Amino acid sequence: MFESAEIGHMVDKKTWRKQVPDLRVALLDAQFELKETAKIPVVILISGQDFAGKGETINILYEWMDPHFLTTLAFAEPTDEERDRPAMWRYWRALPPKGRTGIFAGSWYSDPIRQRLKGTLALTDLDARIDQINRFEAMLVNEGALVLKFWFHLSKAAQKKRLKALEKDPHTAWRVTPGSGPRLKNYDQLQEVAGHMLRMTNTAWAPWIIVEGADDCYRSLTVGQVLLNSLRQRLATGDNQDTPVAPQMRPSVDGRNLLSELNLKKKLNDKAYADQLAHWQGRLAELSRDPRFAQRSLICAFEGVDAAGKGGAIRRIAGALDARKYQIIPVTAPTEEERAQPYLWRFWRHVPRCGRITLFDRSWYGRVLVERIEGFCSERDWLRAYSEINDFEHELSAAGAIVIKFWLQISQAEQLKRFKAREETPFKRFKITDDDWRNREKWPQYQQAACDMVDRTSTGAAPWTLVESNDKNYARVKILQTVCERLETELKEKVVGEWMTREFPRRDNRRDNNKSAKISPRKKGKTKT
Amino acid sequence: MFESAEIGHMVDKKTWRKQVPDLRVALLDAQFELKETAKIPVVILISGQDFAGKGETINILYEWMDPHFLTTLAFAEPTDEERDRPAMWRYWRALPPKGRTGIFAGSWYSDPIRQRLKGTLALTDLDARIDQINRFEAMLVNEGALVLKFWFHLSKAAQKKRLKALEKDPHTAWRVTPGSGPRLKNYDQLQEVAGHMLRMTNTAWAPWIIVEGADDCYRSLTVGQVLLNSLRQRLATGDNQDTPVAPQMRPSVDGRNLLSELNLKKKLNDKAYADQLAHWQGRLAELSRDPRFAQRSLICAFEGVDAAGKGGAIRRIAGALDARKYQIIPVTAPTEEERAQPYLWRFWRHVPRCGRITLFDRSWYGRVLVERIEGFCSERDWLRAYSEINDFEHELSAAGAIVIKFWLQISQAEQLKRFKAREETPFKRFKITDDDWRNREKWPQYQQAACDMVDRTSTGAAPWTLVESNDKNYARVKILQTVCERLETELKEKVVGEWMTREFPRRDNRRDNNKSAKISPRKKGKTKT
Repeated sequence: MFESAEIGHMVDKKTWRKQVPDLRVALLDAQFELKETAKIPVVILISGQDFAGKGETINILYEWMDPHFLTTLAFAEPTDEERDRPAMWRYWRALPPKGRTGIFAGSWYSDPIRQRLKGTLALTDLDARIDQINRFEAMLVNEGALVLKFWFHLSKAAQKKRLKALEKDPHTAWRVTPGSGPRLKNYDQLQEVAGHMLRMTNTAWAPWIIVEGADDCYRSLTVGQVLLNSLRQRLATGDNQDTPVAPQMRPSVDGRNLLSELNLKKKLNDKAYADQLAHWQGRLAELSRDPRFAQRSLICAFEGVDAAGKGGAIRRIAGALDARKYQIIPVTAPTEEERAQPYLWRFWRHVPRCGRITLFDRSWYGRVLVERIEGFCSERDWLRAYSEINDFEHELSAAGAIVIKFWLQISQAEQLKRFKAREETPFKRFKITDDDWRNREKWPQYQQAACDMVDRTSTGAAPWTLVESNDKNYARVKILQTVCERLETELKEKVVGEWMTREFPRRDNRRDNNKSAKISPRKKGKTKT
Repeated sequence: MFESAEIGHMVDKKTWRKQVPDLRVALLDAQFELKETAKIPVVILISGQDFAGKGETINILYEWMDPHFLTTLAFAEPTDEERDRPAMWRYWRALPPKGRTGIFAGSWYSDPIRQRLKGTLALTDLDARIDQINRFEAMLVNEGALVLKFWFHLSKAAQKKRLKALEKDPHTAWRVTPGSGPRLKNYDQLQEVAGHMLRMTNTAWAPWIIVEGADDCYRSLTVGQVLLNSLRQRLATGDNQDTPVAPQMRPSVDGRNLLSELNLKKKLNDKAYADQLAHWQGRLAELSRDPRFAQRSLICAFEGVDAAGKGGAIRRIAGALDARKYQIIPVTAPTEEERAQPYLWRFWRHVPRCGRITLFDRSWYGRVLVERIEGFCSERDWLRAYSEINDFEHELSAAGAIVIKFWLQISQAEQLKRFKAREETPFKRFKITDDDWRNREKWPQYQQAACDMVDRTSTGAAPWTLVESNDKNYARVKILQTVCERLETELKEKVVGEWMTREFPRRDNRRDNNKSAKISPRKKGKTKT
């Protein structure tokens, strides 16, 4: 893999002086088109051996391109806000928006490599990480990003030579720090780990570009040319990526489906409701204060037919919780900053920390519901959303989040009754719009989309709960009870995907409830299904 | 202050049932106008005694208003990302954007009150915090926000009674936690501290609304009415606040000013430049690795005449730094999310953590330079910006940030030369636009604005450095040297505004460079001027 990057590539000063001006003009033109017309986000990973020119490359990119549209992203020790969330959260929040270029000095590769070198990551766990990285990068590319992964390589001899040359020149001697020497001793080990990583992540959609780092002119010109060619190619092809074949969704041969089979007659009288509500709210309040919950987080997503009672159910949950512990996120139209990012970005930004709760009033499932039906995104986009959503929820639960998803179902007759009541009650009128009436006409399509959604995204770690909601009392209690029972089970015997939580181990002293009893460590064992 | 809230206010169920529907309709109408037309951000503070109905009020607001435009903000123990920045950073990042309502369950008042109760905040320090809060709220109001501060009060007897009633009813008993009893013992102390705080922050622009919390119907109706009336009043008056009188800026009687007095002939030959550059870059690299810097942060703002060489100077600083330590923030047009916030919000979001560096290519001074000259904001806005900027920089430096500001000055002749060179060099062409030529015609106005800016914002903690930049060599070295010398002084003898840093003391174990030598504590002593 590294052979071509050890043959002693060099570019002389004359060639350099001749080529650079044209390259710069071309790069600036491409960058301009990128931000003005194509609005593509560019992700550039700068990685490789020590002293192979990573920092110099970042500087030259700032010199050659318009720095107003560049951002450098770098990652040191994770902060506690990062430790308290899935490992990929810190990278999601650093992604460049459309039209901008993000230069990653360090990336999602750095931690696995570091941990593998330290010996704290088993090979099988490393491979799980690699799989996750490949899926993440595929998502980026599918979302329209250009992903360029540079690895700067030096042979062992070339690395030593470069270090000596830097030390000798008084203008560069300061670049060599006391830690430089010892770090080089890891050369062989790093080559082995990186070799494995690079091979396994050398995908068609985001291949590695290995560049010999010994000669400044060669390295910089190579990076510039690769960047220019990739930008041009991407600008020329536009968004015309191969559309995956749409698999056949489940056809409704006998007219029966998950939702039509629900018994919507289930009821609870007001007396029983008051008692049950108090019971489960009290239980939820207790569970949210359980010291074991400080190690976990809770994410509830509410979807359902219009007027099925999502808001009321959410308020019954919130009513049992300390305001400092939860956030209600109503999912409305995305903001400009959100539209400039991959679809899931706006949900990632609301992922709760350990010990916290986020209640989503509508959710990331909008893509396979309203966006699918109304044609707000392409077929290709919503088809790939199922697996991206599964990946997302997998990352959440592997990091200790408890993901609970509710579909609230009412009958068409009940919906009509509620729509009319909304129109007739002045303070409910804001809840009913023309859109609601239009959606109602597409009832069968929405029901079909909901069934497809449940079929494809109800997973062991993040199952759907279908809620018979013609009776609000019954629905609210069922939801509260489901949340409580799931929390009880999870806090009792939850097994956590070890590789992910081990990446950024949490620190004991950064818990909020530092007066609470001792926290029992997460148990190991078999995965709950 | 609390007398009116101890007389046993009550509203009977009948009145409640009669008034609530109309109130809800009116609130929804006002909220709709708020978000569709007026685009005002509403900041609601919910605070007061335990069991005075804070949580219940939040719930009722969610029931009465359209929850899609409400956000609840709550603050527990600060995270390390928050500890590493000025105390107000966590509140800045929580502010609701225009058209939305942020309900603060806990706020900038919570920490000072808690610390005062614990006895860790001296009265004089408390008063400094109060002054800061008043200035912050004035800024919010000036930026167009409606700020409503509710304090729910209970007499000691009423509080006890309410606790007992909650315990007795099986439907509410779970609301009483083991910690409830002991907390009530602080009643008198809390009343004293809160009384002082409330009195001192009872400003004309953001007065306190003290509400008796004993009776649910009374409390909720009161909050609803106050909210409705305030919204209506605000919607009716629009943005017509009193314009402050514009003070006379320094007139140029003799044609001389700070910038005209600079000696732009200062030079450095290429040989000396190479040596000096290496010297100061080396020094800067060392200083950035100094263990004492892990307790501080560095913020450099670059302003100057067009084509004065900001970008080149910034790259010379960046070239000396580890990519993980710094961020270059080019200040371009604000995004939609940024436009929906107070002016300084988009700079607050880039405030670096301890141990980190942010280089701003143009800065928050845009408001008193280009926005003033081009009329992008009202006179009232840029006039108040001077003191808001001073407050901002004061908060930064009080929290340990080192703030360095550069104005790069070139002559008109030199600018013309550089403009022409940019037009003639293909890869520099992107740097010159029609705007630049237009700005050049307003040379005297821009120079005047720059002088006013330096006069009004060059403070002891954050002084301006004027850089003679006709010669790029000289300018770059002067800038590097200034940064290094300032860092040296600050790391040696910096005194930190104690009250601010004490608020969220940093934890030793959360430093990046946890292998570095022992960190010496910040020295106490007299303020450096």
